[in-house]
Amino acid sequence: MDEAKALAAVEKSLKRRRYEHTLRVTEEAEVLARRFQVDISKARLAAILHDYAKYRPVEEMRKTVQSEGLSPLLLHYGDEILHSFVGAYYVSTELGVTDLEILSAIRYHTTGRANMTKLEKVVFLADYIEPGRTFSGVEEVREEARLDLEKACLLSLRNTIMFLVSKQQSVYPETFEAYNELIFDIKRRS
Amino acid sequence: MDEAKALAAVEKSLKRRRYEHTLRVTEEAEVLARRFQVDISKARLAAILHDYAKYRPVEEMRKTVQSEGLSPLLLHYGDEILHSFVGAYYVSTELGVTDLEILSAIRYHTTGRANMTKLEKVVFLADYIEPGRTFSGVEEVREEARLDLEKACLLSLRNTIMFLVSKQQSVYPETFEAYNELIFDIKRRS
Repeated sequence: MDEAKALAAVEKSLKRRRYEHTLRVTEEAEVLARRFQVDISKARLAAILHDYAKYRPVEEMRKTVQSEGLSPLLLHYGDEILHSFVGAYYVSTELGVTDLEILSAIRYHTTGRANMTKLEKVVFLADYIEPGRTFSGVEEVREEARLDLEKACLLSLRNTIMFLVSKQQSVYPETFEAYNELIFDIKRRS
Repeated sequence: MDEAKALAAVEKSLKRRRYEHTLRVTEEAEVLARRFQVDISKARLAAILHDYAKYRPVEEMRKTVQSEGLSPLLLHYGDEILHSFVGAYYVSTELGVTDLEILSAIRYHTTGRANMTKLEKVVFLADYIEPGRTFSGVEEVREEARLDLEKACLLSLRNTIMFLVSKQQSVYPETFEAYNELIFDIKRRS
């Protein structure tokens, strides 16, 4: 699928503010892909499509999880994570994207997972640090993203876990797994 | 095994300060057991024995994990958790304790796990809130422990996860599972 078609599909599906966020994520993903030797056109396309399902009704997404045999775990965690997993499915079935690396980067852009590919990390991180983001701690992640893809992803996971746990909200298990795995990975490297 | 024998075995194995901690955990476990309708003599015995392996050499504990087929995961997380899992094994093989509920309360007193029994929760919590503890946040857990065993365990897990994650240390997977499960459990109840 070419970028122009993807952008048109996404522009139709998203509110204006979310579409602008998507454009910023796309630029950020390109910067990161270039920096960390990831396929730039795949990074851009995954970024363009990452929030494709953002405004689908929650009930529709929950039904899709059940009818398409996605992990039933998804129904027990915050609705915020549904759009990534179901989004990958819709991007495949509605837009005809077949590249599994791109679909996987869409699928894990919110939760992360253990052993993310570099493309997954680039989209995950670009979504977190794009210039419109103002979370507490985001500047530190941006700094780290200039140098080290894994350490930057770890910092972003750390911030997300701290935020959720401080509010006593559940955390999707793959987010915890991503966190632990990156700690081990970074330790092994050093 | 009677308490006097357990106390004698533990006094021999522990440094003075740790033995005094053990006595305070035992008193706290009795208070909690009485409050939340848990078998008092089991709670006291598990508390007396919970740190039995605390001063075993790390290398010996790691070897025991391997030779006795305990979870290999234990070797990849902080050594701090080894004494609970290996301790349950030593309490069984060296002291002849056969009560599986007591052994399990010893095994999970540091990490917790999903679906803890009430006895496990009592020992886990008593170890966290005994009067000698001065962690940041412990007073809030003590307050909650006057009313609700599950909410108090959740607060203690929250504090532990926040502490470890803020330092970018790995977190034993069963601790994360315990955290999520208690959130769901408390939500279901309310």
